[in-house]
Amino acid sequence: MLGGGSWATALTKILSENGARVDWWLRSKDDVQHLLRTRHNPRYLSAVQFDLHRVFPTTDLEDAVEEADWLVLAVPAAFVQPVLDKLDRDALKHKRVISAIKGMIPGKNQLVTDYVADRFKLGRHQLGVIAGPCHAEEVALEKQSYLTIGSPDSELALEFCGLLRNRYVRAHPAADLDGIEYCAVMKNIIALTGGVAHGVGYGDNFLAVLVSNAVQEIRRFLQAINPQPRDLSASAYLGDLLVTAYSQFSRNRTFGSMVGRGYSVKSAQLEMNMVAEGYYAVKSIFELNKKLKVHMPITTAAYRVLYEKVSPVVEMELLKDQLR
Amino acid sequence: MLGGGSWATALTKILSENGARVDWWLRSKDDVQHLLRTRHNPRYLSAVQFDLHRVFPTTDLEDAVEEADWLVLAVPAAFVQPVLDKLDRDALKHKRVISAIKGMIPGKNQLVTDYVADRFKLGRHQLGVIAGPCHAEEVALEKQSYLTIGSPDSELALEFCGLLRNRYVRAHPAADLDGIEYCAVMKNIIALTGGVAHGVGYGDNFLAVLVSNAVQEIRRFLQAINPQPRDLSASAYLGDLLVTAYSQFSRNRTFGSMVGRGYSVKSAQLEMNMVAEGYYAVKSIFELNKKLKVHMPITTAAYRVLYEKVSPVVEMELLKDQLR
Repeated sequence: MLGGGSWATALTKILSENGARVDWWLRSKDDVQHLLRTRHNPRYLSAVQFDLHRVFPTTDLEDAVEEADWLVLAVPAAFVQPVLDKLDRDALKHKRVISAIKGMIPGKNQLVTDYVADRFKLGRHQLGVIAGPCHAEEVALEKQSYLTIGSPDSELALEFCGLLRNRYVRAHPAADLDGIEYCAVMKNIIALTGGVAHGVGYGDNFLAVLVSNAVQEIRRFLQAINPQPRDLSASAYLGDLLVTAYSQFSRNRTFGSMVGRGYSVKSAQLEMNMVAEGYYAVKSIFELNKKLKVHMPITTAAYRVLYEKVSPVVEMELLKDQLR
Repeated sequence: MLGGGSWATALTKILSENGARVDWWLRSKDDVQHLLRTRHNPRYLSAVQFDLHRVFPTTDLEDAVEEADWLVLAVPAAFVQPVLDKLDRDALKHKRVISAIKGMIPGKNQLVTDYVADRFKLGRHQLGVIAGPCHAEEVALEKQSYLTIGSPDSELALEFCGLLRNRYVRAHPAADLDGIEYCAVMKNIIALTGGVAHGVGYGDNFLAVLVSNAVQEIRRFLQAINPQPRDLSASAYLGDLLVTAYSQFSRNRTFGSMVGRGYSVKSAQLEMNMVAEGYYAVKSIFELNKKLKVHMPITTAAYRVLYEKVSPVVEMELLKDQLR
């Protein structure tokens, strides 16, 4: 498990409580020491107690990776490249890699699984993605949750589902790796734009229309970049979008809402002391779409607000005429 | 305009502010007198002030109907029959009827527009339905909203859209009268079941999965009862479902939540001093489905909790295994 955030913490809980050994790489020495001393992650889901006979926190990346059959990526998208580039190019040769990341490699506009495949010369049968409507906080509370493992390799997907399933987690396999991964990225754009609209003063009626139109926008984009039949009302797509767009706690929504209320992008980021993944996702998807030329009014509006400094009020006025 | 509730009040505001004359039938003499005296509906959206040169509140049904070109139905579904049966069978001969009701005729399991067509011998070109994600409260606040007029007659739909459109209301026509009307009924079942799940203790992860599965359940039902190609991600379907299922103020959700927490159906109804439309919708759709035999796990679960006194905890346990 690579990553020390809430999602990494939740997945480590699920996997280890199912009996798996988890070598857990965290960047922060302090956090690792706290985990070893107290069995709790000091910063995320701190109520969860880990069994240190199964969970082995470490800051030594090579050590964590070396013996593992599976690599689960749960660092922020912006850190994938700096972290993984420390590993030898053949370090993942016989491993299977599951991405739990909801963002793209910045600057490259590349899916995380595509980057990993390129860098480590992995076949697509070695790759998967975890998706599903899943607040990590609710996993910590052991609330019923549903995950989807997307992989072109159905055996890989089924096997990883088996590692996740427990009393409160249902998991099922799906073949559409790329579609699920793109959708997980794009839902943050929608949550962010929903936040902008909220900040400007739009209400629940508008949000419901925005999310409905978002499903259509995501479908058009996926059909252009990776055409294949897919039902976007499956919970890996629509469910994931809903849990994010309707969450009061979503960082993307909060960030968007501050921008909508008139904060500059920079001051919203400073105020939040972090960067919302959706901020980068907007740029990646917008740039990818320059070639595809899909009609994407929501992503375009978000791009213009975040990167071209168009007034959120003006841009939402323009957007509302393109929705129905 | 027939009806004195919040949706009737919001629609009367929109139509009259656009210049239409609205003869407004309300059941309560007191409310009519209050309206005539103060220009405000005492019970719903009380901040809205009406122009009594355009809006004519009355308790005289025949009088309200006689001169009207359009009849807009906005009474609770349970009152459609008792109210309309007071009118002569040819009273609506040359009129066009728009239903704004989100329920079915109790005991008959019939759509409101079907009932009106039968009773008054109207053709389908005289019928339409208003749908869309639209809290009446947000209309009162003039928040941006989107409505869909569903009618097999595109001229009727377009004309009524023209009566609605203003600075904060977008309206567009759609042909799928039946599908839109059934979906407006079924969304209340989903909101109610979401409430039951919430009352039992399920969280946002589960709700997102429930709503995703609901889209598929509604699609299967519509395909069985009225097969035709339709995109359920349009805002008249998905948007309407979202604004209801994610509303903190939904009566259906509140009612379901009380049942989930252990109130009996009767005491929840007494406590709320009203009956949620979804309560009747569950029975109508469940009974209609006895012939169709569509796989409807959510509606079935709601039926068993509300009408067969199965424990909500047990039923949600069973339901969760049928979702994915």
